[in-house]
Amino acid sequence: MRNANRRFTLASRPPGIPEPNNFAEDTVPIRAPEDGELLVETMYLSIDPAMRSWIGEGPSYTRRVEIGEPMRAGGVARVLESRSPAFQPGDIVQGRTGWQSHPTLRARETQKLDLTRGSLEDWLGPLGTSALTAYFGLRDVGSLRPNDTLLVSTAAGGVGQIACQIGLIDGCRVVGIAGGAEKCRFIKDDLGVAQAIDYKAEPDLTAAIKRACPEGVDVYFDNVGGPMLDAALANMRSGGRIVCCGRISQAGASEPYGIKNLGMMGGRGMRMGTFIVFDYNSRYNEARAWLSAQIKAGRLRQKLHVEDGLERAPHALRMLFTGENTGKLVVRVAS
Amino acid sequence: MRNANRRFTLASRPPGIPEPNNFAEDTVPIRAPEDGELLVETMYLSIDPAMRSWIGEGPSYTRRVEIGEPMRAGGVARVLESRSPAFQPGDIVQGRTGWQSHPTLRARETQKLDLTRGSLEDWLGPLGTSALTAYFGLRDVGSLRPNDTLLVSTAAGGVGQIACQIGLIDGCRVVGIAGGAEKCRFIKDDLGVAQAIDYKAEPDLTAAIKRACPEGVDVYFDNVGGPMLDAALANMRSGGRIVCCGRISQAGASEPYGIKNLGMMGGRGMRMGTFIVFDYNSRYNEARAWLSAQIKAGRLRQKLHVEDGLERAPHALRMLFTGENTGKLVVRVAS
Repeated sequence: MRNANRRFTLASRPPGIPEPNNFAEDTVPIRAPEDGELLVETMYLSIDPAMRSWIGEGPSYTRRVEIGEPMRAGGVARVLESRSPAFQPGDIVQGRTGWQSHPTLRARETQKLDLTRGSLEDWLGPLGTSALTAYFGLRDVGSLRPNDTLLVSTAAGGVGQIACQIGLIDGCRVVGIAGGAEKCRFIKDDLGVAQAIDYKAEPDLTAAIKRACPEGVDVYFDNVGGPMLDAALANMRSGGRIVCCGRISQAGASEPYGIKNLGMMGGRGMRMGTFIVFDYNSRYNEARAWLSAQIKAGRLRQKLHVEDGLERAPHALRMLFTGENTGKLVVRVAS
Repeated sequence: MRNANRRFTLASRPPGIPEPNNFAEDTVPIRAPEDGELLVETMYLSIDPAMRSWIGEGPSYTRRVEIGEPMRAGGVARVLESRSPAFQPGDIVQGRTGWQSHPTLRARETQKLDLTRGSLEDWLGPLGTSALTAYFGLRDVGSLRPNDTLLVSTAAGGVGQIACQIGLIDGCRVVGIAGGAEKCRFIKDDLGVAQAIDYKAEPDLTAAIKRACPEGVDVYFDNVGGPMLDAALANMRSGGRIVCCGRISQAGASEPYGIKNLGMMGGRGMRMGTFIVFDYNSRYNEARAWLSAQIKAGRLRQKLHVEDGLERAPHALRMLFTGENTGKLVVRVAS
């Protein structure tokens, strides 16, 4: 197997939630690196909500994955062979490995991990893309300020749990929304949010948010969209900010849900904004310096949900949309 | 009549569009001014979309008008008697006259008009609240930049026609949406927008916007909400900004329309914002200096739609929501 690259390619486009049968396994010969390339062994793959837009029928803000191509994914890998002066065999890097065991990567699209900033697991978690997403979403789009009431949806998820912790570090009152008692226990007891709302146990989410945030919400970090966004809109304070980060609730919907409470924004000096974390790449260093300091001070960590084996990647992607994971989803391909 | 104050008071709350029978006429004795007050004679009343929220059942961002109270309104008036050292009889002022012929106003809530900045009619139009609304909406919420494609709804209306002209002055490509051939002719020929979209003649507004803005919309100045907002959302460029100024289309709706295309904002660095012009009152001087310079240079003007006589005020308010007016609606009470 040392000379084989095991892959999962896109077999068909999911109309809604990606299913394992949307992917096909194959094994191809390893491609030897050319000048400026690296042969790597994938160690971990990151499983992220944006993947759905890369393979679905709907609009995607980046190039789509074509049928027959290996599924695109960010990963952490060990360099086996380098045809770039910037890398040595044994270096730990991150890059666009895709769902492949032994991909050949372009050196200029690959970054060596600075392990003084955090461990390899930290680079998957509180220094990774989910953490950067929470950081720029709250800081830049949300203009988070001390003493704000911050409401976070999918608060136990990859981005959500970092958003909760950044809010706490910044001196905000943080309220998290999550599905199920176990996730709520995690965000309350382990992360330390002021209140946890179990949306699966609440018949009236608008009223539940009102009880948890009686003076209203200053910043809503929205990972969900749909009816949960409507419930949050009904609870925003004047001058409130809504950070539109994801719309997981709409993943399986054939007809988009119509947001009814946008009118509640009217005349109250509110802002709603979307963003792509990649647009902030010139500021990743700033963000990682801050995140690293918080990790070292013991104020920031991320629970990883690890699935073992490359063959688990298609299942893991499905789990993200059915909510079976607690914490940032990763697939361990090799140790 | 010199000693009588003719008024229109709120008789009942309109569930949707305000109708003349929601108001009742009466005549009461003039109240002599006390210290710090002015007795004025109303010359013009401004008729504005926000009035509906002051008298309806829905949420209002400011104190509601109570049943039996004179209808609240901004107006231009002549001072008859002053118990404030800052005002003299004969001064032309603006203030909260309400729908009254001879109100008594608090001096500190009343401003003398600086007629060097523009004529009395200019103060109702391109120096008035509608113009300030367009100015701060585009500048502050919309971050309007030269060469932007600016889309303006109700482009022939009070705020809309100023928004179109500010866009043109700022070097934008301006596309206006209005209802009917006459309004479209006005914004195209008189204001000079690049294209006018007659929404009443377009079966598919999304496609019509796409034809008029083939490269997408940078800033949408939204006076309407509802399906028109959805059509605009489907045509926004990455990094686009939506200025939520009004939701006239929702005025008569018992069930709010659900916005379906908010998902199109996802991942594209978009911003949507609401505002209250009154929050900018510390910057009115800045805005009026700029607006006045544009008026004097002949680049900015406002078509007034004048209804004659205080008794026309209830009808004029209705007209605003049925779209019968072209231009900023005012009621002339006295010359």
